[in-house]
Amino acid sequence: MKGAVLYGPRDVRFEELDAPRIIKPTDAIIRISATCVCGSDLWPYRGISPITKPTPMGHEYCGIVEEVGSEVRNIRPGQFVIGSFFVSDNTCPHCRAGYQSSCEHRELIGGAQAPLLRVPLADGTLVATPEIPSDDLIPSLLALSDVMGTGWFAADAANVKPGKTVAVVGDGAVGLLGVLSASQMGAGRIIAMSRHEPRQKLAREFGATDIVIERADEGVSRIKELTKGIGADSVLECVGTQEAMMQAIRATRPGGCVGYVGVPHGVELDGQELFFAHVHLHGGPAPVRRFLPELIAMVWNGKIDPGKVFDLGLPLDQVAEGYRAMDERRAIKTLLWP
Amino acid sequence: MKGAVLYGPRDVRFEELDAPRIIKPTDAIIRISATCVCGSDLWPYRGISPITKPTPMGHEYCGIVEEVGSEVRNIRPGQFVIGSFFVSDNTCPHCRAGYQSSCEHRELIGGAQAPLLRVPLADGTLVATPEIPSDDLIPSLLALSDVMGTGWFAADAANVKPGKTVAVVGDGAVGLLGVLSASQMGAGRIIAMSRHEPRQKLAREFGATDIVIERADEGVSRIKELTKGIGADSVLECVGTQEAMMQAIRATRPGGCVGYVGVPHGVELDGQELFFAHVHLHGGPAPVRRFLPELIAMVWNGKIDPGKVFDLGLPLDQVAEGYRAMDERRAIKTLLWP
Repeated sequence: MKGAVLYGPRDVRFEELDAPRIIKPTDAIIRISATCVCGSDLWPYRGISPITKPTPMGHEYCGIVEEVGSEVRNIRPGQFVIGSFFVSDNTCPHCRAGYQSSCEHRELIGGAQAPLLRVPLADGTLVATPEIPSDDLIPSLLALSDVMGTGWFAADAANVKPGKTVAVVGDGAVGLLGVLSASQMGAGRIIAMSRHEPRQKLAREFGATDIVIERADEGVSRIKELTKGIGADSVLECVGTQEAMMQAIRATRPGGCVGYVGVPHGVELDGQELFFAHVHLHGGPAPVRRFLPELIAMVWNGKIDPGKVFDLGLPLDQVAEGYRAMDERRAIKTLLWP
Repeated sequence: MKGAVLYGPRDVRFEELDAPRIIKPTDAIIRISATCVCGSDLWPYRGISPITKPTPMGHEYCGIVEEVGSEVRNIRPGQFVIGSFFVSDNTCPHCRAGYQSSCEHRELIGGAQAPLLRVPLADGTLVATPEIPSDDLIPSLLALSDVMGTGWFAADAANVKPGKTVAVVGDGAVGLLGVLSASQMGAGRIIAMSRHEPRQKLAREFGATDIVIERADEGVSRIKELTKGIGADSVLECVGTQEAMMQAIRATRPGGCVGYVGVPHGVELDGQELFFAHVHLHGGPAPVRRFLPELIAMVWNGKIDPGKVFDLGLPLDQVAEGYRAMDERRAIKTLLWP
């Protein structure tokens, strides 16, 4: 089979790879129906997170189970399944507490930008849909594997509640789906921070009531103005930079909550500023597995359509162009068809 | 009148001061029944937080209302009252959200180590007891003004729940009262971190079930051992140093909560470590006013006796010895009788 391999900065190749096979009796092999490029794939693509050897790429996936190991009990060949980018046993104390992305046996998925994928701990990781979905549902189901699950966790971690005022820092796919999540959770007002017209438009479709184009301290001032000087009840940080994190903390009311899901790059928090900010801070790698059953049901019933963040669809052999388009911000998110 | 004034490192003097008087119509003047030395008073006393001029000291107080301004409605002369170290209007949006220590009109109390004290925003700040208390209740009522309210907030911010495992970093008066608070909130197991025998003893009296004498990463390992490798559900950080903060974060299970109330001195948090720790972080200056009615009732009904943290009582004119005893850790906390 052929899949995507990153060789170095801006050097993604579509090349021959060994097909994955069952290694442990708890594994499953999936035939990928659709995969995509993640914002976090851009860190190594841009050379910011260095790689030491050619690396098969991709950690977002959905598809048909091809084969299962001898100890797999709940997942069967022929099922359509979705899993998280972190595999989990779903039975350890951290999993039972709802933090499957801190599972005692977690492993990061790699190599999903290919026709076949090995998923360890299949029973704990994968969730099957009620039936084989129609093709039009596949983008939205794929989104649950990471980007929608992560936006949902940002809103959950920021304690979004009905009627509350929410601000979202970051207009990437995660930020936009953070808007959708906040809207589904009943937020009364959703302020999206974006200066890009097509992203503003999608944010509004997903439920944003206000758009703020200012950034950093000016963005904070604008949110304070919009909230009578109080600050937002919940702020979703969906970037991972120092500027975005401080913007989120400073835009939150005392006693309010920051949910942060952008993988921090060079972020340092000053203890005293955080102390007097009086905010709740929670985040980390999204425990997508916790949310999958609920989110699958919402997609299945037509309640949400997170697949809208895919504004570029390409056959898998054009994966290099998929990365380029996201790197140059020509695309919000690239879907790849094997 | 004579009160305590800090002139510089380890130079507290008991000297003549102007008696306070009503300045604004929302003020009250209180005749202090008891006051005390706070752990945070030791920062300037030790020269770590510099002072620029002779500074009247003290922010913990209870006593009899002597006089009120013309706009004070709820507080009357003759009442016994307790207030927080931050005054608050108790009506602004932050107060209504329960964060009175972030009140839009907050001011820090100063000069409570004296026979008389001016309290601004008396209606929003002060809470009266049902009757004039007997003398034996006064230490416990005084403790509510800061140290017990702060320990309670640490436990509240750390989301202590019945049956849960709690660890407390710091064996000062706040940490010890954090143990008492966790116990009152029904914690199943309370691990106090202390290497001082008299403090361990008081921690056990207050409800600690385990004592850990190790510190820093060794202390974290010990807590992991005690919790089958999982970590504590809730950790109270009651110190304010980098070591204590990291100890708290690392001892908490993924999805667990750190409540931090030690005023941070030189604390910097690495964004990426915090992200993968998966903890909830909340804290800041305790909104004592939120808890006063409930805590007063608990002291009044004999349910809690936070006054036990005062292991040294002195007449106010010996205030300098009161500071020395705490600085040298001969006393946990010094109560002063005017």
